[in-house]
Amino acid sequence: MLTKIDHIGIAVHSIDEKIPLYRDVLGLEFLGEEEVSSQKVRVAFFKIGESMIELLEPTADESPIAKFLAKNGEGIHHLAAGVDDIDKARARAAEGGLRLLSDKPLDGAHGKLISFVHPKDTGSVLLEFTQRSGD
Amino acid sequence: MLTKIDHIGIAVHSIDEKIPLYRDVLGLEFLGEEEVSSQKVRVAFFKIGESMIELLEPTADESPIAKFLAKNGEGIHHLAAGVDDIDKARARAAEGGLRLLSDKPLDGAHGKLISFVHPKDTGSVLLEFTQRSGD
Repeated sequence: MLTKIDHIGIAVHSIDEKIPLYRDVLGLEFLGEEEVSSQKVRVAFFKIGESMIELLEPTADESPIAKFLAKNGEGIHHLAAGVDDIDKARARAAEGGLRLLSDKPLDGAHGKLISFVHPKDTGSVLLEFTQRSGD
Repeated sequence: MLTKIDHIGIAVHSIDEKIPLYRDVLGLEFLGEEEVSSQKVRVAFFKIGESMIELLEPTADESPIAKFLAKNGEGIHHLAAGVDDIDKARARAAEGGLRLLSDKPLDGAHGKLISFVHPKDTGSVLLEFTQRSGD
């Protein structure tokens, strides 16, 4: 049911500060920036093979990313897996005993539908399912 | 220079305990287990698109993974990027101001050559370069 690593989410204090590392030093293609109001973050994407690296910068103190940064500092925040059908993925996860962090899929970046699995059910890995609209 | 996400490394107390989650609940193909003596870990791989999920279980108290687990608990440990030529990747990283954690590439799982970048130079992301032998 998981087709690929869609992206790895990395929490940062400042996207602008980190663009030179990912684009110039590591040589990844910069795909642009976007604000995701449902998560109170600004995000930037870089292409790496069939996947992306997503930098997340909080836009408000109550953003989940602001809380993560206050507790852990910068670093890898979540692992997002591509799914063909997010409703089926949610149903299968629930059948397998995984709790979902929202009652229904949320709007993510790039017009995708997303859902997070409770990290207590995955050995502290924050796992996101992501389905492109129209897929 | 980075061709894809080769794998995401996840630190766990017990690989056996986590296999049902990744194989049965999430439905990923289990690719097998291996011991990596240079890192004092036992690893298990699952296929996800062109990438893998690597579970890491320490085989000794002085394993870097044992130290990670003692400090952070289970969770995402590192991001491994595939490279065509690890010597070129190391040289370019060094030119860009990134410190490498070893003087030369080390032996990783699956007969790969690997090198880690100092996480202080990457916003606390432990970044691994990995090159398949014979590539």
